[in-house]
Amino acid sequence: MFDVKSVDEVIKIIKESFSDIVLKTEVVDIKEAVGRVTVEDVISGEEIPVFNRSSVDGYAVISSDTFGASDSTPAQLRLVGEVKMGEKPEMNLQRGKAVYVPTGGQLPKNADAVVMIEYAENYDDGFIYINKAAAPGSSVVFKGDDIKEGSIVIRQNHVLRPQDIGMLAALGFQNIKVKNKVRIGIISTGDEVVGIDAVPKGAKVRDINSYALYSAVLNDGGIPKLYGIVEDNFDKIKEMVEKALLESDIVLISGGSSVGTRDETFKVINSLGLPGILVHGIAVKPGKPTILGKIYDKAVFGLPGHPASAFVIYKIFVSYLMDIINGIGPKLKKTVRAKLSCNYPSNNGREEFIPVKLEEADGKTLAVPVFGKSGLISILTSADGYVHKRRGYEGIPSGQEIEVILF
Amino acid sequence: MFDVKSVDEVIKIIKESFSDIVLKTEVVDIKEAVGRVTVEDVISGEEIPVFNRSSVDGYAVISSDTFGASDSTPAQLRLVGEVKMGEKPEMNLQRGKAVYVPTGGQLPKNADAVVMIEYAENYDDGFIYINKAAAPGSSVVFKGDDIKEGSIVIRQNHVLRPQDIGMLAALGFQNIKVKNKVRIGIISTGDEVVGIDAVPKGAKVRDINSYALYSAVLNDGGIPKLYGIVEDNFDKIKEMVEKALLESDIVLISGGSSVGTRDETFKVINSLGLPGILVHGIAVKPGKPTILGKIYDKAVFGLPGHPASAFVIYKIFVSYLMDIINGIGPKLKKTVRAKLSCNYPSNNGREEFIPVKLEEADGKTLAVPVFGKSGLISILTSADGYVHKRRGYEGIPSGQEIEVILF
Repeated sequence: MFDVKSVDEVIKIIKESFSDIVLKTEVVDIKEAVGRVTVEDVISGEEIPVFNRSSVDGYAVISSDTFGASDSTPAQLRLVGEVKMGEKPEMNLQRGKAVYVPTGGQLPKNADAVVMIEYAENYDDGFIYINKAAAPGSSVVFKGDDIKEGSIVIRQNHVLRPQDIGMLAALGFQNIKVKNKVRIGIISTGDEVVGIDAVPKGAKVRDINSYALYSAVLNDGGIPKLYGIVEDNFDKIKEMVEKALLESDIVLISGGSSVGTRDETFKVINSLGLPGILVHGIAVKPGKPTILGKIYDKAVFGLPGHPASAFVIYKIFVSYLMDIINGIGPKLKKTVRAKLSCNYPSNNGREEFIPVKLEEADGKTLAVPVFGKSGLISILTSADGYVHKRRGYEGIPSGQEIEVILF
Repeated sequence: MFDVKSVDEVIKIIKESFSDIVLKTEVVDIKEAVGRVTVEDVISGEEIPVFNRSSVDGYAVISSDTFGASDSTPAQLRLVGEVKMGEKPEMNLQRGKAVYVPTGGQLPKNADAVVMIEYAENYDDGFIYINKAAAPGSSVVFKGDDIKEGSIVIRQNHVLRPQDIGMLAALGFQNIKVKNKVRIGIISTGDEVVGIDAVPKGAKVRDINSYALYSAVLNDGGIPKLYGIVEDNFDKIKEMVEKALLESDIVLISGGSSVGTRDETFKVINSLGLPGILVHGIAVKPGKPTILGKIYDKAVFGLPGHPASAFVIYKIFVSYLMDIINGIGPKLKKTVRAKLSCNYPSNNGREEFIPVKLEEADGKTLAVPVFGKSGLISILTSADGYVHKRRGYEGIPSGQEIEVILF
């Protein structure tokens, strides 16, 4: 039989059970690569810059020519030319001479420093008068200073950020090999669930979870696919999960809030293959009836039927599983520090994810718990995030500073 | 002439100058609506739930039948049936009787509470024995409890989250009117800049900014378009900016790190239309040479040429401008609290965005400033975020707790 697991235990099970999954890879244009995960280290085939470059608008000099220069005794250097942007200067700079160089321009040979125009007077008499000594290397980015040839510029298993795309551009990479996006199949179950195009009759409700989960997967960079609504029937659920498993890395079975449906979901996951069920019940509110199984190298979640519960469990566990399959560390979440607006009682010290709304009052940020009966969709839309109350705490006192994890 | 502006002044100018811009709208499938911005309030045309619904697996009762029930004196009620999931019960519940209802099932008429199965014994003798009194309304979500007909469920100018998409599904919306994505044209200037497919010759460098900015716009939910590289020539820059303005809400002119190029960019923005230049220089490191203009109802930024500077200015000001044009409050940024790893000197009290790398040491998070000469692309790829040092502070001491804004 299965013990109900704690949140930390489930996180550990996910990490241990799914770290071995290897996503296929594809090569994409760097313009489409932001947010994608690298497969291998990116190694520079070049040096950047490939020339000694000025980092200011100023005068390229031989630094020792400026030693001792000051306002009262400026160094007088003959101005012998100007380097044009993007052009390679052909001259060799000689002692006692200076050349104008724009920011980003190449220094002539022998020059080892640039004096900013602010520190040089030019009276148009053929000379410049430098009133501050320049140390060797000042205002110069030397060849290879930024990137050495052969160095690792982006690691494997790294989520590409805009600045990484800039790095790839700098090195002339037009394409990059990345992991395929995680594919997530979404199945709704429940005899009470009807499509969103239907007018619910009797005691039916529209399929909320499919659309909230679909959107959450999109937000997390996965590829969601809806498999529609399946009635509470072992064979039909099994058939649909098998179909979804062929096309997905993770299958989410949502709905099934009643004991009967949860039992069917459990039986289906248990029947599909090895190792089978890993988690049957999590000691957390909301989300107790969550089921997690592994079928060969795929994951199957049985999510709670309540939209609010299903969504919170998605945020905590499915999103984490996506990171594990991607081979990346858990993504940092957006958080806000706030003061709890009221006492939050929790008599039994149970672990909870408490939905809260943020409000500003007297220049302070307050976290107001959104109370309501389980399963209300309006709880989630009115909440800005949640507070993770760990096990063993008998509640949180009003005014306590807490961390709110934003949805 | 233009005074150099502070960061706060530029933020204020952006808010005041661009809040009047009205984006066109489009109607999209709710499956593609996450992250998009609503145009108008969404009003419920229905009540949710449309029936009195049980929030547990249990027995629907008339609550007064259970008053006084306890372990020693359970209330004995005749079990007269079972409500099937999704079905409307036809019976009227009578006093002294109970009906099994699954979670999410509809209560029969007259029932006003549900007793969880944990608090009822069923010996299969036709009765159930309830050992805990149920208050009226307990474990019931009444008709309209979640959402009232005519209530505003999602506000205008709201960025749609997955749970909002769930709300739309609940109410049967298959489509939603949203604002068009902000279109951002990106132009690179500079005689030294070549395409990423080129092998840079002489003192040329590849076009880093176009690709970093393109990816940043994608990340921020805008539509980027690259207009390529234009040489440092007033007429050519002007022609390209005019073309980009026709197809964009914001045009970014990147590059032009030298004084000469910055002058051309200034002249071009100043020549295009009214009100023209709003900001010419920002008192911040990096990003001093930033230019911002408004041409009729479009924005034009002249960004610094250094990739690191251009990217930081994008994060602070362009991203904010996108929020303003979208009519939404500034998006909350991902932040992490960390201790500064070393003294950060800043002799003149200048406002700075300091790139930092996060490291873990002894269970603490350290923010390590990434020093380096301006313009190095590797600064940005090795940094995890930045610290905003406000004006007037003469540096930050080692060990001080600071907020790191993640890239």
